[in-house]
Amino acid sequence: MNPQLSDLLGAHELIVGRIHRTPVLKSSSINELLGAELYFKCEPFQIGGSFKIRGAMHAALRLSIAQRSKGLITHSSGNFGQALSVAARELNVPAIVIMPKNAPTVKKTAVLSYGATVYECEPTQEAREEKTQEIKKVTGATFLHPYDMENIVLGQSTCAQELLQQVGAIDIMIAPVGGGGLLAGTSLAAKLCAKNLKTYGAEPSGADDASRSLASGERLTNKTVDTIADGLRTNLGVVTFPIIKENVSDILTVDDRQIIEAMKLIWERMKVVVEPSAAVPLAALFKNRNKFAGKRIGVILSGGNVDLDHLPF
Amino acid sequence: MNPQLSDLLGAHELIVGRIHRTPVLKSSSINELLGAELYFKCEPFQIGGSFKIRGAMHAALRLSIAQRSKGLITHSSGNFGQALSVAARELNVPAIVIMPKNAPTVKKTAVLSYGATVYECEPTQEAREEKTQEIKKVTGATFLHPYDMENIVLGQSTCAQELLQQVGAIDIMIAPVGGGGLLAGTSLAAKLCAKNLKTYGAEPSGADDASRSLASGERLTNKTVDTIADGLRTNLGVVTFPIIKENVSDILTVDDRQIIEAMKLIWERMKVVVEPSAAVPLAALFKNRNKFAGKRIGVILSGGNVDLDHLPF
Repeated sequence: MNPQLSDLLGAHELIVGRIHRTPVLKSSSINELLGAELYFKCEPFQIGGSFKIRGAMHAALRLSIAQRSKGLITHSSGNFGQALSVAARELNVPAIVIMPKNAPTVKKTAVLSYGATVYECEPTQEAREEKTQEIKKVTGATFLHPYDMENIVLGQSTCAQELLQQVGAIDIMIAPVGGGGLLAGTSLAAKLCAKNLKTYGAEPSGADDASRSLASGERLTNKTVDTIADGLRTNLGVVTFPIIKENVSDILTVDDRQIIEAMKLIWERMKVVVEPSAAVPLAALFKNRNKFAGKRIGVILSGGNVDLDHLPF
Repeated sequence: MNPQLSDLLGAHELIVGRIHRTPVLKSSSINELLGAELYFKCEPFQIGGSFKIRGAMHAALRLSIAQRSKGLITHSSGNFGQALSVAARELNVPAIVIMPKNAPTVKKTAVLSYGATVYECEPTQEAREEKTQEIKKVTGATFLHPYDMENIVLGQSTCAQELLQQVGAIDIMIAPVGGGGLLAGTSLAAKLCAKNLKTYGAEPSGADDASRSLASGERLTNKTVDTIADGLRTNLGVVTFPIIKENVSDILTVDDRQIIEAMKLIWERMKVVVEPSAAVPLAALFKNRNKFAGKRIGVILSGGNVDLDHLPF
């Protein structure tokens, strides 16, 4: 995958009327605490509560009408299932989400509320892939991967593209990394839409496959996963890793205590409800404050889908 | 007080570079629940976490430089004390806030963090006015009332002015009412900047002086006050009441249970941290859904200063 500027701009052009242009917020008190100038791109206010709709909508619109009218299918226990359901509803085509039996009821309810069909499977990678193949064969629906597809990455790049349009020249861009769709897209936008702009990834230390992969030059996986940042527990993809390897300066890790502190700070000072995954970049900036002192930094706040009855603070 | 359109526009012109132009957010899920189209003007993202900076900044800028260099003084246990402190810091003049002894430490700390001087007094209306006079005499500082002054009302009108610029034609505007500065300003903007736009106020039933005042035509006060909406416990002012009487269609009351439900819904669906007072208008819309069905409605989300360690849900 070697996209050009025109591919990125084309992706944005395609989805721009169908997604929200989320605001960029600043916080003078966080800037003072950190000694840098931060611009927060607020994807919690995006349709479905996270950036995921960007990739889902873009990938869906790249299909022919005949193709997408047979439906869209994915396996996801998190934000992408919701995003796919919303995109399908907008485009008036069927959505099917394969979810592990043990997925939280609240996530299943959310997907159902958007009109998607949910099929349950055993909570293993094999079971979800098998189930997906089975339903795909019966329905003719097109599979959209939550992150590991070129059109998903191009869709996710629109978030950083907008941020750059909204704030002008910055020095650093930072985004969380799980499967790598958002970080890959962000790094492409930083390379192709700006000059001298470095991209960093931020990752929980309890699921640090991206950090280890970047250090070793080979795609490594997490043997075990232990972090509150539920959106970032997945492994880097085969499509996303090479892009990240080429375009990302470094991946910074933080522990759950640092994530929760940054999360609370965003709620308190910025009045934005963010989920733990979305707070990982700010936590990484605080942990590495000397490195980022005095810089103008674009921070992707990736999403705000959190259970208000079970807050970690 | 009989301000013209030019006074309102002039107020906005004066403060526009010194405050945030807060975003307007929509929520399709709340629209569906309510059967109306809502546009939320998000003042939690304003400097100081509420709309109060608008009035404070405007009133301060209307003073001569010689006058304001002697300082600004107010008595407030809530958001206006913070707003005055922030405005004074921006303008590089002293700020003095008179606070009751029993004000929460967190509010005192916030005011102090903006560089204001705090004087404590007994928690009575007489004591705070006496203390204010005493300090005013010594310092020569100018008193800014939290709501009951023409320049404060004009400043607060800028919030609705921006909302109208941002969304275009709407049918209804709704704002919370405590002392009435925000509602008076909102109703002036609705009358002077738009056509056929009705303004409603929303008030907790446990502090319903504005509702009773509008019904009787005379300014009445609260004998006792009992509501979670701490920003709306004050009585209507002598400056604000006549404006509200002339320009507001009705004032709708809601109980604390309805306020908390609306507050949680805003957090959950919109990902905006709002304080109870800011949720009162949405609660009133839900309580009167038939009246507002199918309308395009501008809702002022007034602020987001809430203690995250003591949430009511």
